[in-house]
Amino acid sequence: MKLLEDKIIRDGKIGAGDVLKVDSFLNHQMDVAFLCELGKEFKRLYADEKITKILTIEASGIGIACLTAQYFDVPMVFAKKTKTNNIYGDVYTSKVESYTHQKTYDIIVSKEFLKAGDRVLIIDDFLAKGSALTALISLVRDAGAQVAGAGIVIEKAYQSGGEWIRGQGIRVESLARIKKMDADGIEFC
Amino acid sequence: MKLLEDKIIRDGKIGAGDVLKVDSFLNHQMDVAFLCELGKEFKRLYADEKITKILTIEASGIGIACLTAQYFDVPMVFAKKTKTNNIYGDVYTSKVESYTHQKTYDIIVSKEFLKAGDRVLIIDDFLAKGSALTALISLVRDAGAQVAGAGIVIEKAYQSGGEWIRGQGIRVESLARIKKMDADGIEFC
Repeated sequence: MKLLEDKIIRDGKIGAGDVLKVDSFLNHQMDVAFLCELGKEFKRLYADEKITKILTIEASGIGIACLTAQYFDVPMVFAKKTKTNNIYGDVYTSKVESYTHQKTYDIIVSKEFLKAGDRVLIIDDFLAKGSALTALISLVRDAGAQVAGAGIVIEKAYQSGGEWIRGQGIRVESLARIKKMDADGIEFC
Repeated sequence: MKLLEDKIIRDGKIGAGDVLKVDSFLNHQMDVAFLCELGKEFKRLYADEKITKILTIEASGIGIACLTAQYFDVPMVFAKKTKTNNIYGDVYTSKVESYTHQKTYDIIVSKEFLKAGDRVLIIDDFLAKGSALTALISLVRDAGAQVAGAGIVIEKAYQSGGEWIRGQGIRVESLARIKKMDADGIEFC
């Protein structure tokens, strides 16, 4: 998506440790008008998929997932990273390995909010090694629901996650796919 | 707001330890179409305030803040709960005491995203003792920006936070104010 690639070139910053910092519009400050355009694009891509629910993971997926859900007119559910006092009863659980934070954590979704019969679109801000996306897919399958696909804002296509997940027959639509990223700049697929 | 009070009565569940569980529409599953109506109400209430930025705190504030920001046509910024590898440089920082999680944690906002001259509307899902809201107000003031007010979805009016913050001359608009909550049900102000 040209609009997004231009934005990444203009506002993104490359940091040490393979970090693409897009926190001026995506994951700290959120350029909501801009993100709505991404939401509409996800709707265009998945218009025929009879989506019944959007699923994401806290925290930085929540904004783009909410804005996207309004175009599908379906509820959004976000997987929580720890078991809090506010969640009772039965949950689906899965493990995520975070490379940014260098730790493994559990995510949970209450069984009330994912059901057999749901057709789920998973939305997330980044796809790199695919650990979060794999964990979300696992939650959907545990619920007996169907993964209609994934909508990713930025995919680091030089990492293994996208290939691995598409290789399982899952549709993954990434609005920007980075082929190469270094001090000289960013190259898209 | 009658629409919200009816929804709380219908879908909210009262749990042990003064917990109002509204995770079927507000903070686990999000009823996005419904939350958009709350966003429009915040816009109506603060229409004359020349808001330049919406501020909230991760995680459960992000959804309602994003959806609200689109009606103001301004960016949304969310304060982060811990210093991650993805944030560099100077940040404003403040402390929050979480009664739900029984711990104190730091929140940060990058100095890039709050500036003197900003007129900030703080949005959050709950107001009880006011610890999160107080911390967010402190971040805005550290930036030399102005707090135009706060927009809260559900205020536990029988707790001290709302009174304390309004007592400082800050406008707080809560869409539902709970006067009393126990096994017999919920009473609104």
